[in-house]
Amino acid sequence: MDNTRGGIALVGFDADDTLWRSQDYFDQAQAEFERIVGAYVDLADAGERLYAVEKRNLALFGYGVKGMVLSMVEAAVEITDARISAADVHRIVELGKGLLRHPVELLPGVREAVQSIAAEWPVVLITKGDLFHQEAKVRDSGLSDLFRRIEIVSEKDAHTYARLFAEFGVAAAQFAMVGNSLRSDIAPVLELGGWGVHVPYHTTWAHETDAQLRHGGERMRSIAAIGQLPSAMQELSALARS
Amino acid sequence: MDNTRGGIALVGFDADDTLWRSQDYFDQAQAEFERIVGAYVDLADAGERLYAVEKRNLALFGYGVKGMVLSMVEAAVEITDARISAADVHRIVELGKGLLRHPVELLPGVREAVQSIAAEWPVVLITKGDLFHQEAKVRDSGLSDLFRRIEIVSEKDAHTYARLFAEFGVAAAQFAMVGNSLRSDIAPVLELGGWGVHVPYHTTWAHETDAQLRHGGERMRSIAAIGQLPSAMQELSALARS
Repeated sequence: MDNTRGGIALVGFDADDTLWRSQDYFDQAQAEFERIVGAYVDLADAGERLYAVEKRNLALFGYGVKGMVLSMVEAAVEITDARISAADVHRIVELGKGLLRHPVELLPGVREAVQSIAAEWPVVLITKGDLFHQEAKVRDSGLSDLFRRIEIVSEKDAHTYARLFAEFGVAAAQFAMVGNSLRSDIAPVLELGGWGVHVPYHTTWAHETDAQLRHGGERMRSIAAIGQLPSAMQELSALARS
Repeated sequence: MDNTRGGIALVGFDADDTLWRSQDYFDQAQAEFERIVGAYVDLADAGERLYAVEKRNLALFGYGVKGMVLSMVEAAVEITDARISAADVHRIVELGKGLLRHPVELLPGVREAVQSIAAEWPVVLITKGDLFHQEAKVRDSGLSDLFRRIEIVSEKDAHTYARLFAEFGVAAAQFAMVGNSLRSDIAPVLELGGWGVHVPYHTTWAHETDAQLRHGGERMRSIAAIGQLPSAMQELSALARS
């Protein structure tokens, strides 16, 4: 990496809901889960009860589809007081397989935006979740050749970003991260002294919305669509050089 | 890494069933699975039917406990003709949680052997499977400080090793891999021109026993216990320098 000039030397991209559609499919799977257990009990809060089980299991399962499906099976047994049929359990497992099989659908303007950034800075992909599934999605996206490195991590916190900066050979002040999650993509990078471009997505998992930007907001830009990324990056880059 | 002198410049270690006990727990979980479905059907081949489902799902789930448990749930529905109760499905999910929670138990002599090798060569850990679970096991093992890098990969084939050698900055001929699986640890490294020390474990998953060493056998040593690793490495190292 080029560390000799001032300014930004490396740009990281998040993947799910930044480059391609993801949460929509999870939302659909959750709606289908609610229909399945809805045949046994009349509950307005099946979604919240599922989220409670997911949250409880997060420290054991980590992120990703497989852990979510195991939590769905467990929540379905709980919610139905163990009345759910084996056939309906199987439907839940099939929901998960559907999520894993889903083709990767790039969000509008993504290819052009990543190409434009990659023409000016080296770019890396940093995504969390299931190693096997994320690798498959990166492969299917057709974008993998643009990225110098693909990093799949178990958690996107300041500790992880600091380790990655050391591996990449850049200082935090030379790094900008592009992503849809304030909690995972923006806050930890700003905290370390880096830069961020926030691209909100129309739907976000409850777990990711719970974030506070304590400081560094002056090193962040929010954009409404990924098409605005090149100009936001130019703005941050100029600031980083000044 | 030191690439200037001839000989071996980097040693890689496999983790599961090389550094710590793993397959034993999977075998126990499978026996428990067979007891659970055995209450519904009188089958001698429940284990084979489970393995068939696991193998079918491998391209979708990858390796690791969570995929195995999802395959167990699916196999249980299949084997019992959808008669398995929700309570027994829940017991299967709990089997999986037990596997994920199990404390890491180092195999005898492992700490001394790794320390001895790490005193002479830089060492890295290369393991496949679930990112989240493998990271937790490395953390719990108390060995992570000995390793320069921890690489968790989705598949251990020649393609993956070649990518890692490029990231590590070593040639295949400078790399030796220590592990219990001919298929995952030894054959692909020998194929690329590297070195291998095979440490067989008393029990091996069916999937890992299916390997043929086509060439490079002269660059491999088999040892009966990890305590013999230092002398096996000295022998390979002398050969690599000659």
